[in-house]
Amino acid sequence: MEITLGLAALKLVGYGLATFGPGLGIGIACYGCCMATARQPELQGRLFTNFIIGAALAEALGLIGFVLAFIV
Amino acid sequence: MEITLGLAALKLVGYGLATFGPGLGIGIACYGCCMATARQPELQGRLFTNFIIGAALAEALGLIGFVLAFIV
Amino acid sequence: MEITLGLAALKLVGYGLATFGPGLGIGIACYGCCMATARQPELQGRLFTNFIIGAALAEALGLIGFVLAFIV
Amino acid sequence: MEITLGLAALKLVGYGLATFGPGLGIGIACYGCCMATARQPELQGRLFTNFIIGAALAEALGLIGFVLAFIV
Amino acid sequence: MEITLGLAALKLVGYGLATFGPGLGIGIACYGCCMATARQPELQGRLFTNFIIGAALAEALGLIGFVLAFIV
Repeated sequence: MEITLGLAALKLVGYGLATFGPGLGIGIACYGCCMATARQPELQGRLFTNFIIGAALAEALGLIGFVLAFIV
Repeated sequence: MEITLGLAALKLVGYGLATFGPGLGIGIACYGCCMATARQPELQGRLFTNFIIGAALAEALGLIGFVLAFIV
Repeated sequence: MEITLGLAALKLVGYGLATFGPGLGIGIACYGCCMATARQPELQGRLFTNFIIGAALAEALGLIGFVLAFIV
Repeated sequence: MEITLGLAALKLVGYGLATFGPGLGIGIACYGCCMATARQPELQGRLFTNFIIGAALAEALGLIGFVLAFIV
Repeated sequence: MEITLGLAALKLVGYGLATFGPGLGIGIACYGCCMATARQPELQGRLFTNFIIGAALAEALGLIGFVLAFIV
């Protein structure tokens, strides 16, 4: 007798949870970047840099979850 | 005797969780883009660029979840 | 002897989760579009374009979940 | 010997989750439409159009969950 | 008789939960940095330093979850 639970699909559940924070965070960062650019147009380059750094840091957490699905 | 639990449907649960953050984040980014455009109409091109970049980064996290459903 | 757990209904749970973010995100995007249009009526075309793009990106994540229910 | 667990009720759980986001999103969109109309009464037609489109996009996600309950 | 539960995938679920706060926190930090820079442009260097420190502290929590997946 052998009982096998194929729980590989749980990986996708894990990835799904992993995208929650980053996806929401990128949206909030983008929102702040747009609003700040509208208030101080001459700073658009600097604000965009800030936004990209923040979005990249958050995106990295999501992409690591994608990589982790193959390692674990 | 063999017991098999077909939990492939869990993949869809995982994908569902994966769309939460991005879907909400895109909405917030769009909200910020619209409000900022209304405040500084002459910056609409720049603001739209910011919005598209942020939305694309968030959307990518959701679409990766779709791809992952077939790989895992 | 064979034990089968029909968990196909989990697909609908997954789809339900998949509509959470996009549904909420579309609402927030629509909210921003309306408020921005009220502030700068002459930009209504541009703002509507932004809103539709954001809503379409979010809606796509939800509809992919519908398609996924038949594939997985 | 065959053991069948009727978990059809999970469908209703799934549909319930599916109404969460859209229901909330439509409310937010309606809120924005009302506030914007109050600020710029002469734009009421345009704002109502924006609201209906956004609400329809979100409503569609919820109704698909209703249809899915019979298909899955 | 042998019961095998392949619960390694639970690691990814844990990692997914671990990114929730950091991803969201980085986005909020980025939002605050952009808005503050727009209000006081001459403080952009200092504000950026604050943002990077805050984002790095949050990011670390997510990355520790990644490392933990291999240790546990």
